[in-house]
Amino acid sequence: MVTFLAGGTGTPKLLDGAGEVFPPDETTVVGNTGDDVELGGHLVCPDLDTVLFHGGGVIDRERWWGIAGDTTETHDELRRLADAADLDSGPRYLPDERQTAGRDIARWRRFSGVAEFMEIGDRDRAVHLTRTSLLDEGHSLTEVTRRLADAFGLDVALLPMSDDPVATIVHTAEGPLHFQAYWVARRADPPVEDVEFRGADAAEPTDAVLDALADPVVVGPSNPVTSVGPMLALPGVREALASTPVVAVSPFVEDRVFSGPAAELMRGVGREASTRGVARAYPFADAFVLDDADGTDLDRPVVRTDTRIDGPADAARVAAACEEALASVGG
Amino acid sequence: MVTFLAGGTGTPKLLDGAGEVFPPDETTVVGNTGDDVELGGHLVCPDLDTVLFHGGGVIDRERWWGIAGDTTETHDELRRLADAADLDSGPRYLPDERQTAGRDIARWRRFSGVAEFMEIGDRDRAVHLTRTSLLDEGHSLTEVTRRLADAFGLDVALLPMSDDPVATIVHTAEGPLHFQAYWVARRADPPVEDVEFRGADAAEPTDAVLDALADPVVVGPSNPVTSVGPMLALPGVREALASTPVVAVSPFVEDRVFSGPAAELMRGVGREASTRGVARAYPFADAFVLDDADGTDLDRPVVRTDTRIDGPADAARVAAACEEALASVGG
Repeated sequence: MVTFLAGGTGTPKLLDGAGEVFPPDETTVVGNTGDDVELGGHLVCPDLDTVLFHGGGVIDRERWWGIAGDTTETHDELRRLADAADLDSGPRYLPDERQTAGRDIARWRRFSGVAEFMEIGDRDRAVHLTRTSLLDEGHSLTEVTRRLADAFGLDVALLPMSDDPVATIVHTAEGPLHFQAYWVARRADPPVEDVEFRGADAAEPTDAVLDALADPVVVGPSNPVTSVGPMLALPGVREALASTPVVAVSPFVEDRVFSGPAAELMRGVGREASTRGVARAYPFADAFVLDDADGTDLDRPVVRTDTRIDGPADAARVAAACEEALASVGG
Repeated sequence: MVTFLAGGTGTPKLLDGAGEVFPPDETTVVGNTGDDVELGGHLVCPDLDTVLFHGGGVIDRERWWGIAGDTTETHDELRRLADAADLDSGPRYLPDERQTAGRDIARWRRFSGVAEFMEIGDRDRAVHLTRTSLLDEGHSLTEVTRRLADAFGLDVALLPMSDDPVATIVHTAEGPLHFQAYWVARRADPPVEDVEFRGADAAEPTDAVLDALADPVVVGPSNPVTSVGPMLALPGVREALASTPVVAVSPFVEDRVFSGPAAELMRGVGREASTRGVARAYPFADAFVLDDADGTDLDRPVVRTDTRIDGPADAARVAAACEEALASVGG
């Protein structure tokens, strides 16, 4: 058994070939939910969805989000309606008093859907709608995710990190922004001053997650701050990781990053934007997988390979390095 | 100035040609909201939407609901997901304790969107999503409807009957069913024992509606029980109608009905399913427009014409009869 901690792109790309090394029916993926939003009344879980769509064979492989070939009829009409009604296109983060009204799971991550600042495809939307409806019927996010995984025919077990709301708020020079407003709407432009995981203190990892964290863990090449950070902010997760073999794949090659806002975010929380900074952020990691070109000298075992992942063969190679690294530390 | 009371099909069809007789910029339409539902987290207002889509020139003229040429990508995927996840296709009316959770406006009309028992088109959905988002931003249904009317370029004023929730519950031999479950899912099959307008006692007509009811009123050829009944159940509406000239178009030709469940519903509430029954249900009506073939002898002035409406010319003819009838009673 092995457990992957997954954010939005890096780790799903690793999972694209990990089945060659780690049998899918012995693999659990714990997905970050810190960047989830309730958008126009529907709970969107971008990181879980990427794993769902990948596992279901429908992921858009150009963007690594959304469903390949999806249409955007509703999204386009939302833009048209907002324009015709002279409504600003947002993002329209709801006022504070409304962040704590409505569904508990949506706390501090509620956006009006007017003009829909994130592009949601029509089939993609059916997933959010089914998810939200099952939540409204009284099921937990864990149960709902299992149902959706069934619908997509996943061969790995997929778990949200928590059934409670955690909202990643990026504090910037322009004020606090929900992560999706910072990343999707503002393209990581405003200087980052801090990152807050609102709700994390009161949230709990699920029992299923704690069980999964008793197995050897692979922390994929995800952004340490906003992809892995929300999981680490949950009570008990760091302790669980400290008690099991953990290998982490650096999303950096020394101080260069393959994609995404990891560097800006690392600096924003006072960390070095580099493999060294990742190692310091992951004191529970027993070993690391680094790129061949990454000469960082760490205080823990390292396995090197080409860590760029552009397809299943690359992913299988990095997964094999993870297996080797885990084996070296008893995992 | 003239005010139409509108349900889902009969009155919108009358409006299709009423502009020939009643200047649109002097016309207000008060829409029934008793058959609204919150479906999958979005407030669907079928009667308002029919007027919106007609006014915007996009109504599907075959069905008289939805947008012409709309696609159903999300709806189809909802059905597919539910099937793949082995979830019943509904209607999935939420349990009682959840009917009063969430948005106030959705009380007693909340359905899970799993498998989506009502067909919602993709562009149609954008309307519900914008509406719900504007409600979540803190606007009233009246304000939201005005915004949507702007977006669709309506030339009449469109008002929801109330900003408060009223849920039409049909009590049947098989138990209580929300109107949409009775009508859309069950095709008006279960025998009707009574009809309840849940929430009406505590709901209020808006000030804008009460203002509009100070003008002469046309009660269109809508179903008296579930289209007009919810409006009549609001405190003060019957009194307002009693104080202004009112003409009603019978949806019956003696005891035959053009379309819809009016007959079953009239009988279900203990009324005669006929023009005579309509006249008794509308004691505030000062005059009636009946079909040429309708020989019902009423105790109030009657104007007869061919009341079948299959297009704008028919609608203009019936509207002219309404104008004549109103003139005969001082309107």
